Amino acid sequence: MKRITILAAMFIIAASSFAQQALWGGQAIVSPEIHENNTVTFRLRAPKAVKVAVTGDFLPPQPTETPFGKYDLPGTAELKEGEGGVWEYTTPAPLASELYSYTFIVDGLRINDPANVAMIRDVASVTNVFIIPGNPGDLYSIKDVKHGSVVRRWYDSPTLKEQRRITIYTPPGYESNNQTYPVFYLLHGSGGDEEAWIALGRTAQIMDNLIAQGKVKPMIVVMPNGHTQNTAAPSESNRNYLPAMGGGPRQAVASMEDSFGDVMKFVESNYRVKKDKANRAIAGLSMGGMHSAAISAQYPNTFNYVGVFSAPPIATMMARNNDDVAKNTEDFVKKLQVQQRNGFNLYWIACGDTDFLYQSVIDSMKKMDEIGFKYTYSESAEGHIWKNWRIYLSEFAPMLFK
Amino acid sequence: MKRITILAAMFIIAASSFAQQALWGGQAIVSPEIHENNTVTFRLRAPKAVKVAVTGDFLPPQPTETPFGKYDLPGTAELKEGEGGVWEYTTPAPLASELYSYTFIVDGLRINDPANVAMIRDVASVTNVFIIPGNPGDLYSIKDVKHGSVVRRWYDSPTLKEQRRITIYTPPGYESNNQTYPVFYLLHGSGGDEEAWIALGRTAQIMDNLIAQGKVKPMIVVMPNGHTQNTAAPSESNRNYLPAMGGGPRQAVASMEDSFGDVMKFVESNYRVKKDKANRAIAGLSMGGMHSAAISAQYPNTFNYVGVFSAPPIATMMARNNDDVAKNTEDFVKKLQVQQRNGFNLYWIACGDTDFLYQSVIDSMKKMDEIGFKYTYSESAEGHIWKNWRIYLSEFAPMLFK
Repeated sequence: MKRITILAAMFIIAASSFAQQALWGGQAIVSPEIHENNTVTFRLRAPKAVKVAVTGDFLPPQPTETPFGKYDLPGTAELKEGEGGVWEYTTPAPLASELYSYTFIVDGLRINDPANVAMIRDVASVTNVFIIPGNPGDLYSIKDVKHGSVVRRWYDSPTLKEQRRITIYTPPGYESNNQTYPVFYLLHGSGGDEEAWIALGRTAQIMDNLIAQGKVKPMIVVMPNGHTQNTAAPSESNRNYLPAMGGGPRQAVASMEDSFGDVMKFVESNYRVKKDKANRAIAGLSMGGMHSAAISAQYPNTFNYVGVFSAPPIATMMARNNDDVAKNTEDFVKKLQVQQRNGFNLYWIACGDTDFLYQSVIDSMKKMDEIGFKYTYSESAEGHIWKNWRIYLSEFAPMLFK
Repeated sequence: MKRITILAAMFIIAASSFAQQALWGGQAIVSPEIHENNTVTFRLRAPKAVKVAVTGDFLPPQPTETPFGKYDLPGTAELKEGEGGVWEYTTPAPLASELYSYTFIVDGLRINDPANVAMIRDVASVTNVFIIPGNPGDLYSIKDVKHGSVVRRWYDSPTLKEQRRITIYTPPGYESNNQTYPVFYLLHGSGGDEEAWIALGRTAQIMDNLIAQGKVKPMIVVMPNGHTQNTAAPSESNRNYLPAMGGGPRQAVASMEDSFGDVMKFVESNYRVKKDKANRAIAGLSMGGMHSAAISAQYPNTFNYVGVFSAPPIATMMARNNDDVAKNTEDFVKKLQVQQRNGFNLYWIACGDTDFLYQSVIDSMKKMDEIGFKYTYSESAEGHIWKNWRIYLSEFAPMLFK
């Protein structure tokens, strides 16, 4: 058969579906358009709009009053209306290589860019993304290299008496060889879930690219859901999703730390992994960094590599309203001393110099210095943002299992 | 440590991130709210909007003029503005159990519901979804049953000289036992990609639930990308994504049919599968239905089960502008005769009675009757829509490998 003719028919088929109506709205809008020189044009067809702006982390941050104090939030830029009600904004200067997030604001209403299907959910918000090529953007892009596999599945947690969803990256070749691999447990922050590191964290792309470059050892990366009040990410759960922040009664009684043994047991009985300390790493961002410190102290002879990104390892020191701060901190420091005696290869702490947790990280390290706990500290610019966490992952992974 | 206090700190952490700004916009909006009696309320905070409507397949379809003729498209309903600029619409009657898609239209601009993170991309549009419980809604929901795994990975296609992305469902228990399984190849339509059947198709939920009910045999479901001009879904590709419809030069020379052997070879060398005809099924919707007919005819002693959903098995008969229609049809009918002689268990054709391809399906079956080709036909109400394809999958899968 001559397929071109069939394809014409197929076009009509697809166009008749509900989702395709957008195709009939006139000429296609290209947005964002990344120009040769890395300036970017954003476009939106909105003939009835009075004011259209774009906000995103590609714009200079602006200090903003919030219910929680003053924070640097992404700035906004106004689009100008042109022919056919198409609004447009071009960045005045080229953008540095990076993965950026943005949304439009149309007469006060935040909306996604209908011309860009690249969208990533973070917590309960969905934003559009785009990548400016170069370094580090290329590291976050799907390149023509061998790719690992990313599986979403459910494991049994006897401790929490439920099935829980988990995301696992296996390196290229895992399914077709018989090797065993080291395991890297990678934990999300308080706003995240089992999709966070694979989505905005770009874990699969970072691992694929660094493995292809020979900079990272092939390993299995395990990304569980760190909120025990949920079994899975929103809209992926078998029961009503509870907003991740704020926790709930279950969070208090059965924490991620208490049930983490279930995750390890599942991985070690379902994957071809090396089951010794030398081949286990754990790291996380923000709440996940605190989890990593707490879990590696609770299982004090289990992980040879620990990464604490943008979080104080001694989280108890932060609990200012808690009568037992001193006692709890003392208890945790004792655990650290056991961990230190047992030995490990790397305890890596990374933080941005404008992170609102910066001082708590410094305080933690002072306490660790007092007991002679051997950590490595890496300080970056900027604050509590995905840009930093992607960089930390790209720096931490090459140090593992070597 | 007392975790509640840490959680309060964590809330601030999360709230300070870009994506969390929405949390500060006042009280949370619940949308959609599914009431006890299955009426549904949609809400949107848009104080500056002049007109807000909702459109979706839960509303009665309306005949609409399009560049391709008159089609039934989802209707719209207007929201009314209430206190605080919150617009609201409640369905006048309970909705039947189903998975529905919808978007808002604010002063002519289509936007997603910012209160609902359940969004599914179909082709180049992203719509919100919700499920009304009951039958068949429960079949499409994540229930408290054993879950299979869904992996996204890349396979090598020597025919197309590239790596291509693929989605594979393995049934509960696959990773922890040593059984071999039958394989079901499930193909998307012209507007889809390797995410289509797992997204709006709800394949993982349908399989999980029907396997748990003992109605479907545990099997591996393989969902490749059927557009050879792309290697992967938009924003998942290593090169620029080409709109799926319209095709390109590569489509004409190296079709899905020609390269399908690469998919089978990959699956049979990377998964524990039974490698005989009795344990192979192939089905697809629309273009994927045509692919299924063409592939099962091209490999005429390979599949014991063939499903053609909402598509004419003899697609060549549709190619009206093609001089070789008669010849091509004759050639294809010869292939069907070989397939018939080789034998198979089930050749299942399903179509909706308002499908715009309905007549071409009827014409195909007339031709098949002429040569005594044994198929089973199942006719449903309505047309070329996901609602039907989910039902067809739920009806087809229980007939396989028995």
